[in-house]
Formats: sequence, C-alpha cells, structure tokens
Amino acid sequence: MKIRAGFHIEYECQNETPMLLVLKVHPSRERDLCSEQTLSFNRMIPQRDYLDAYGNACSRIMAPAGRMAISAQFDVSDSGLAEFLPEQAVQLPIQDLPDDVLVFLLGSRYCDTDRLADFAWKQFSATPLGWPRVKAILDFVHGHLVFDYDRADPTRTAHGGFIDRTGVCRDFAHLTITLCRCLNIPARYCTGYLGDIGVPRDPHPMDFSAWCEVYLGGRWWTVDARHNVPRIGRILMARGRDATDVALSTAFGPATLTHFEVVTEEVD
Amino acid sequence: MKIRAGFHIEYECQNETPMLLVLKVHPSRERDLCSEQTLSFNRMIPQRDYLDAYGNACSRIMAPAGRMAISAQFDVSDSGLAEFLPEQAVQLPIQDLPDDVLVFLLGSRYCDTDRLADFAWKQFSATPLGWPRVKAILDFVHGHLVFDYDRADPTRTAHGGFIDRTGVCRDFAHLTITLCRCLNIPARYCTGYLGDIGVPRDPHPMDFSAWCEVYLGGRWWTVDARHNVPRIGRILMARGRDATDVALSTAFGPATLTHFEVVTEEVD
Amino acid sequence: MKIRAGFHIEYECQNETPMLLVLKVHPSRERDLCSEQTLSFNRMIPQRDYLDAYGNACSRIMAPAGRMAISAQFDVSDSGLAEFLPEQAVQLPIQDLPDDVLVFLLGSRYCDTDRLADFAWKQFSATPLGWPRVKAILDFVHGHLVFDYDRADPTRTAHGGFIDRTGVCRDFAHLTITLCRCLNIPARYCTGYLGDIGVPRDPHPMDFSAWCEVYLGGRWWTVDARHNVPRIGRILMARGRDATDVALSTAFGPATLTHFEVVTEEVD
Amino acid sequence: MKIRAGFHIEYECQNETPMLLVLKVHPSRERDLCSEQTLSFNRMIPQRDYLDAYGNACSRIMAPAGRMAISAQFDVSDSGLAEFLPEQAVQLPIQDLPDDVLVFLLGSRYCDTDRLADFAWKQFSATPLGWPRVKAILDFVHGHLVFDYDRADPTRTAHGGFIDRTGVCRDFAHLTITLCRCLNIPARYCTGYLGDIGVPRDPHPMDFSAWCEVYLGGRWWTVDARHNVPRIGRILMARGRDATDVALSTAFGPATLTHFEVVTEEVD
Repeated sequence: MKIRAGFHIEYECQNETPMLLVLKVHPSRERDLCSEQTLSFNRMIPQRDYLDAYGNACSRIMAPAGRMAISAQFDVSDSGLAEFLPEQAVQLPIQDLPDDVLVFLLGSRYCDTDRLADFAWKQFSATPLGWPRVKAILDFVHGHLVFDYDRADPTRTAHGGFIDRTGVCRDFAHLTITLCRCLNIPARYCTGYLGDIGVPRDPHPMDFSAWCEVYLGGRWWTVDARHNVPRIGRILMARGRDATDVALSTAFGPATLTHFEVVTEEVD
Repeated sequence: MKIRAGFHIEYECQNETPMLLVLKVHPSRERDLCSEQTLSFNRMIPQRDYLDAYGNACSRIMAPAGRMAISAQFDVSDSGLAEFLPEQAVQLPIQDLPDDVLVFLLGSRYCDTDRLADFAWKQFSATPLGWPRVKAILDFVHGHLVFDYDRADPTRTAHGGFIDRTGVCRDFAHLTITLCRCLNIPARYCTGYLGDIGVPRDPHPMDFSAWCEVYLGGRWWTVDARHNVPRIGRILMARGRDATDVALSTAFGPATLTHFEVVTEEVD
Repeated sequence: MKIRAGFHIEYECQNETPMLLVLKVHPSRERDLCSEQTLSFNRMIPQRDYLDAYGNACSRIMAPAGRMAISAQFDVSDSGLAEFLPEQAVQLPIQDLPDDVLVFLLGSRYCDTDRLADFAWKQFSATPLGWPRVKAILDFVHGHLVFDYDRADPTRTAHGGFIDRTGVCRDFAHLTITLCRCLNIPARYCTGYLGDIGVPRDPHPMDFSAWCEVYLGGRWWTVDARHNVPRIGRILMARGRDATDVALSTAFGPATLTHFEVVTEEVD
Repeated sequence: MKIRAGFHIEYECQNETPMLLVLKVHPSRERDLCSEQTLSFNRMIPQRDYLDAYGNACSRIMAPAGRMAISAQFDVSDSGLAEFLPEQAVQLPIQDLPDDVLVFLLGSRYCDTDRLADFAWKQFSATPLGWPRVKAILDFVHGHLVFDYDRADPTRTAHGGFIDRTGVCRDFAHLTITLCRCLNIPARYCTGYLGDIGVPRDPHPMDFSAWCEVYLGGRWWTVDARHNVPRIGRILMARGRDATDVALSTAFGPATLTHFEVVTEEVD
C-alpha cells in the first residue's frame, strides 16, 4: 500500500523569528519514503537539519516578518496491515530494562507522575502485569476522557486532563503515559500522521495525531487510547518524553498560526 | 587545593527495590579525582554503571529488603579559585546556539516556562541582553525567595516557588532556569557538593547543593541565585533539564531515607 | 507481505567468555514485528540489552564454557515493494549536511579513505553530482569486485578489496562507502536479512547480508553494489561506520563458531 | 595556578572549502576558563558549533579562498598538581564495564587491534591485571618507539608504528591504545595542550599534544607513553576512538597549512 501524506501550514510573524520545526517523517520511516525529505517554503528560507536527543529529524529556520507558508507532500509505502497488539508481551522487571529506557519512567512537563501515582496503584495494581495492565489503562483513559477539540489546552498536564475529563489526542496520550510510568511501565509520546484508512471517516478536519508507545517484552509497541483499536497506516514523525519535546513548531518570539491543513490518504 | 568530599546515606526498604543512583562525581571532574569512582555498600550489592543522555554517571542497583547504607569518600584536586563571572559574555541569538543547547530552552517538569513567560518579559525585557540580564534574574531570585529548609516541597515547580516566595536551593535553581529560558537564555540544572570554603560556616547540616548553568558567549557558566556570589570548590555531580533528571536516588517502590550525611572540606 | 526471518547459531568456548551480540532487528523495524524481540539460548543465560551510539539494539551476555546455541525467529510485515532509487536526489554541499552525518565522511577501520582518495577523484569527478555519481560508484564496485565466499577475509579493508578485486558482500559495501566518502557523499555500513524474494534463488546457503546507505537529498538511501538492483524485503539489523561497529558477535576471548544458519522467506 | 594557552594557525585554500574544526577546549574544562570559548578569524567567517558523538566541541566553517588565520587565546585555572596514577585501580571484568565504554575495546582506523592481538597477549599476559599491566604497556611503548618529528606519517597505524619503531606523540598514543584494547582494557585517544610546566623546556616548537585515557576501577585515567611521567597542566581539547575523530581540522577540499603556532605557559 502507498499512502500520500503532507501538510500546508502558514504563520504570521511580526518580526524575524527563530523557529524550531519537527515536521519531517521520523528517520525510522525514511526507508519507506519514495522521495527526498524536504520542506517547501513560500520564500527562500535557509534551513538547518539536525537529530535531537530522541532521534527526531528537526529543522531550524529564521521565519521572516510577515506571512510564511511551509508545506510538504510525499508518498510512503506501508504494509497495509493493522498494528499488532502485544498480547503475549511480558512486563520486564525494572532491573532488566535497558538503560536508555529508564528516562521514560520519570516525570516530565505534562506527565506529572507524582500527582497520579496513588490513583494509578489503587486503580490498576490488581490487574495482571504486562499487556493486561496496559490494556486496562488504555480502556480506562479511553472511557474517562471525552474527546473535545474545543477544549484543547496546551498547558494541561495529565493530571489536569484526569480532573477535567476532557481533551484532545494529546491529553489521551499524556494520561496513558503517566499512568504507565506510575506503574513502572516505560512510556513515551509520539506524534505523526494518522489517516482514516480502514475506519469510518472522521468528520473533523484532518490534523496531526498524538499517541504513545509502551515498552513490553523487550521492545516498544504503539498504543492509542484515543481510538483504542489497532489502526492501519500510522506514520511516525517524532517521539519524546511528552508533547514538549515534539512540538511541530516552537517559535522563539510571537508567531500566529494562520492556516493549517493536513492530508493523509491511500493512493494507488 | 585538595577537597575531601563524600556522603553516608541509609535507606530502609520493605521489599527488594530497584533503584537508580546519581551519586558519583560528574565525568568532567574525573581527572581531578585522586582515586577510583566507587560506591560502598554495607552488603554485597551488584551495581551497574551507565552514562545517561545528559552525560551523568548513573548506577543501577537492587536495594535489598531492610537497611542499606551507601557511602563514598574521595579527594579531589581543585584550582582553589573563585568561579569567574561571565561579565563580558554576550547572549547568542537563538539561531547561533548549538543544536544540543536548544532543549535547555524548553519547559520541563519543574520549569513551567509557560506560566512565567509573561512575568519574565515584563520584568526583565528592559535589561541589556547577556550577563546584565542574567545578573538581574539572579538578583531577583535571590531577593524574591526566602531560603527555608522546613518548607522544602519536592513537587513545587518554579512557578510554585515564585508564588510561595520560599524554597531550598532547588527552588532557587528552578526559578532562575525558568526565567532564563523564558528570555531565550539556555539554562540547565546542576547538583553536587558545595562546602563552606572561603565563606562563613553554614549553620545547617551539610547537604548536597543545587545550582544552575547558563549558556552565554559560546559556553556554559555556573551561576547560583541562592548564594549569589562566586564560590570556591564546587564539585559537580550531575546536570539535567531540572531536578527530575538528577535525583540522587530514584526508587521504583517504597524506600525511606533513614540517614543522610554529606561532607565537603579542604584538606592539606 | 509477511516475511519470516531468523537464525540458529552455535559457539564453542573453552572458558566463560563475555560476548557482545548485535543480533536483533533494528529499532526502526520494531513497529513491523509481530512479536517480542527476544534471543533464545540453549541454557539460562542472563542478557542485558542496550542501544549503542549508532542506535543499534545490542545484547551483552556471558557465554558459558562449552556449547552455546542462540536462535531467534519472527514474522515482520513489509510493504513488499522494491526499494526506491534516489534518482532525483541532489547531493547536499558539505555545509548543508546535518552535524550527525559528518562522521560518515571520515575514515574508519575498514574504510581507508586516505588510500583511495586519489583514485576516487580521478575516476568519478567527471560524473554529475548526486545520484549519477553514486550510481557510477555502484556500477564500478559491482563490476570491479568478483564475489567469492572462499576469499572472505575479515581483515581486508576497502583498499585491500580494491587491489584483490574480490570479496564478499562486506567488501562490496566497504569499497562503496569509501569511494562515496572520498567524494564527500556520506555513507554508512548496514547489516541484516536479505532473502531471495522476487529474484532467482541464491545457490549459497543463506547468510546475513551487508549493504550500505548514502545520504542524498536530506535523507539516507539503501544501496547495494553487490546485487546492484532494488530488492524486496531487506530487514535492517544494524548500522555503523563500518563492519567493526556491527559485528554479529564480538567475543572477548576465544570462541569458535560451530554452526550457522539463517532463514528469510515470505510467508502467507 | 593559571595557564595561558592558545594558538595561531593559517591555511591557504584555492577555493571556498568547508572545514570541520576541533580547536576549542573540551566542555569538561569550560568551568576552568576565565573567558568565552571563541575562535578568532582574520575575516568575518560564520561558524556553527556542535558537540560530536564523543562530546567534543566542534565548529563548522566555510574557509574562503586565499589566506585564513584562526586564533584563540585564553586563561584557564588549574590545580597545579601532577596527574595521579591509578596505582590501586583494578581492571574491571568486561561484563562489569558500562555499555558506553565497550566501543573503546573495538578496532578503529589507526588502532588495528587484529594485527597486534597476538603480540599483546604473548608480551603482557603474564603481568598482573589492572595498573601493572597498563604500566607495562606504557613502559614498553615508551621504550619501543623513538620520537622523531621528521618521521611523522598521518597514515601510520599502531601496527605501522610498532614495525617502524618511530613516530610522534600520536603514534605513542595509538600503540598504547591498541595494546590496551587487545588486552580488554578500554582506551581512547586524547588531544590538547601540554606545556613544559615543571619539566625541562622541550627544544621543539610547541605543538598540540596527543595522549590517551584508560578505563580502570570505574573511571578514565590520563596516561602518556610518550613522556611516561605524570605531568602538570594538561588541557584536554577532544577525545575519540583514535586520531580520525579529533583532527584539529578536516578540510573537505584542498587546504594547505601555512602557519602553525601553539602557546601554553603558566601565568601569574
């Protein structure tokens, strides 16, 4: 299967503004791309690419004063198979986790483990270790939060979402991650493309999506409490400790998002 | 000058408990050590060392049920000179910062930049860029927070300290870091030994200390809003985005700190 | 498409011998795996996993005296499409390459760029930059070296292969990499599974394969001078500067490989 | 003690030439610097700094056609104490080495362990493990190689130096490193400033120096087979697997070094 994906985003800046962009496909999907990895701008804008500490493909630019449009479009090959659930995967004891995985047990900006630890243990400590416990967390988060685009709040933490009982995909991910970490299951935040392949068409305008990965049985697995079913054709862009690390754009100065459009669809 | 430093810490655990320790001297000070880098335990406890993503020397152990004592003592050579203040150092524009430095402009668990950005710009945007601006932040934090051991709170963020107007060295560091990041000055959290060399003896029992580093003029500089004067003989143990990343110990299960003693003094 | 892959390897050690294994699928393919990432041993052997500096999934074990068998078998989903050639990809000038890519321009143990630079410039400097130049190198290496299992030599460098005009897939990769680096095209070494999907059956017993990746147009592309045609179903295990970094096993003491079997085939 | 150090280097390039510079003091010595970390050029030359995978402070520039002068001068505080020898340090068994240390046991461009392993085991396997074995290697290398500036050869490997019995500090370092690695003692290459503090004045013009570090007893220790006595005032610039990784400059095109001057001296 081939998937065509891309975006068109516009910003309005009062002054020249340095920006950090995380808008490329993750290096782990490069082999599936049928083209270069390039961002197109409406003006000549020098960019500089680097990999951050989490392995994400980042770009640095200086956004000019006025309107700036950024876009990308690419085809990516995909197995077309639904994600596999780790039903047999065991939960490794802490002492057997690889060193680099440990940081995904700690708290972070939006994953306030200290505020949810008591709840997590009370609610989930009776479930069997491993996938059943992760499944219980996913089902809980899926049922506890009501998806509502109009109540997105970029400062809301996992605990905030837990209390407000609402949020967007980012909040579903933060709450899942935080509960997993409280229970010593490493979890990290992911962002990327997720089209409607194989599922009913989502009535909202397409957006980038957020989900998470949990570490079970010696590897990372994709899980998604927002949809809570295996999906087809997810395309990873970036991973991190939480949304802080993978913001699509971080502007170091005032910048207004004036246009936003994402496309992800199957092509022949 | 030679400094003798070390600690003796005891924990009581109900069950065998995996722990992550950040109790060694930072690799950047290894060359000054007159001995091996070893932790001593009151029992045979296998440990495993690794460097985390910030370059800190970490150890993983399985703490046994019951009492566990950890200690270290070492001599370290030091120039004996007071820290140099970056009075001439310019503030690099964002676009000239190295890639690896950018993460220290983002928010983190205890450095809630989104909550302090407005204050930061209102309060400090009239000060000249670079060292004068950092100096103004240090003076502000030094004056705004009242040091109080009895009001330590491990869940307090920078904004929390700002509102409470109190804290321990960790809160001074978090507030300094957060205000610097709001103003596009990269800042990171440090922890280590700081004895009373060259200053009046602190009446409190000796503890590990926390301070921060700011990036000006192409390098990192030690600054310390708690004391707000250049000191002699600081010995770095670990650095990170905030206190989350450099906790002296992280226990993955219940563990009680039952004894705590730190020594740092000049020797002949 | 699903591919079933795996191996069965046996070693004979005189004494207990520490070993470093690079025998797992690369983390970038984890999402395609239908199972855990585990190595099976014929005895209880504790293992410890880590990611090396190139992002590879490594394992450390202590091989016992006597016979040790290691095996793995897994299914991986794959797009089933042939690799895409970067026919439109431009060669970035050095100054536009990301920092982390630069190390793949330097010499390394088996890629002795200093010995092949003169030849590389004389032979290829008239070809157009970018893909045509890489294509010319691939065609040259494909024609210059004669594949011969019986003349494998683990100490042979790229220059050695160039002179001997023979080698195994590893030598094809080292020569390609070295010539590319001489011409300022970043190149790295890859190892993994490559079955006969879509091509005539190779009469040799199946082995792991080696190939390389070149950096053009802002991303890495798979190229393979040994076969010199796009293939289906390549499964990456590890990448590095050259074969040194991705040896399937590195034994720190005498160890004899006594059995070796690799499987890679399409399944329904 | 304060040490004043610096250099003045000139290159002549026919065309604009991208260059990679490793000419700054190592980040682990930043705290001892009394000034910014800046390189001065005889023209306006934009530079871009980054840390490489070994933690070194690197700079990227575009050298203009014609003459380019680069210089730096700085004061650094130092303990003034001679380096401590690890006389009590034990040699950790392979299985207890940290993961990040393992790469310093492998071969590399100039450290051809495969060619020296037999000699290493025959010559040194009777010496006690740990410091006595490292000491025996240092004494051997110190006695086996004759220092000769006129016989410097940038393509000479450790084995080449072993056969030629001559070389410069770089060859002493490569041979020491290679023999240590053969004997399962991790070793890495270092470069930096080394003045004549506390020793008779070296009649040669001052140059940058090369030495190495070995991993014993849980930390890295500075050793130097060229001088083979503890020195005062060594200032680290960069570390790597061998000289490839820490070349002071790597020019991606023709560039001639036309002037070279290094200063390192004690100041009041």
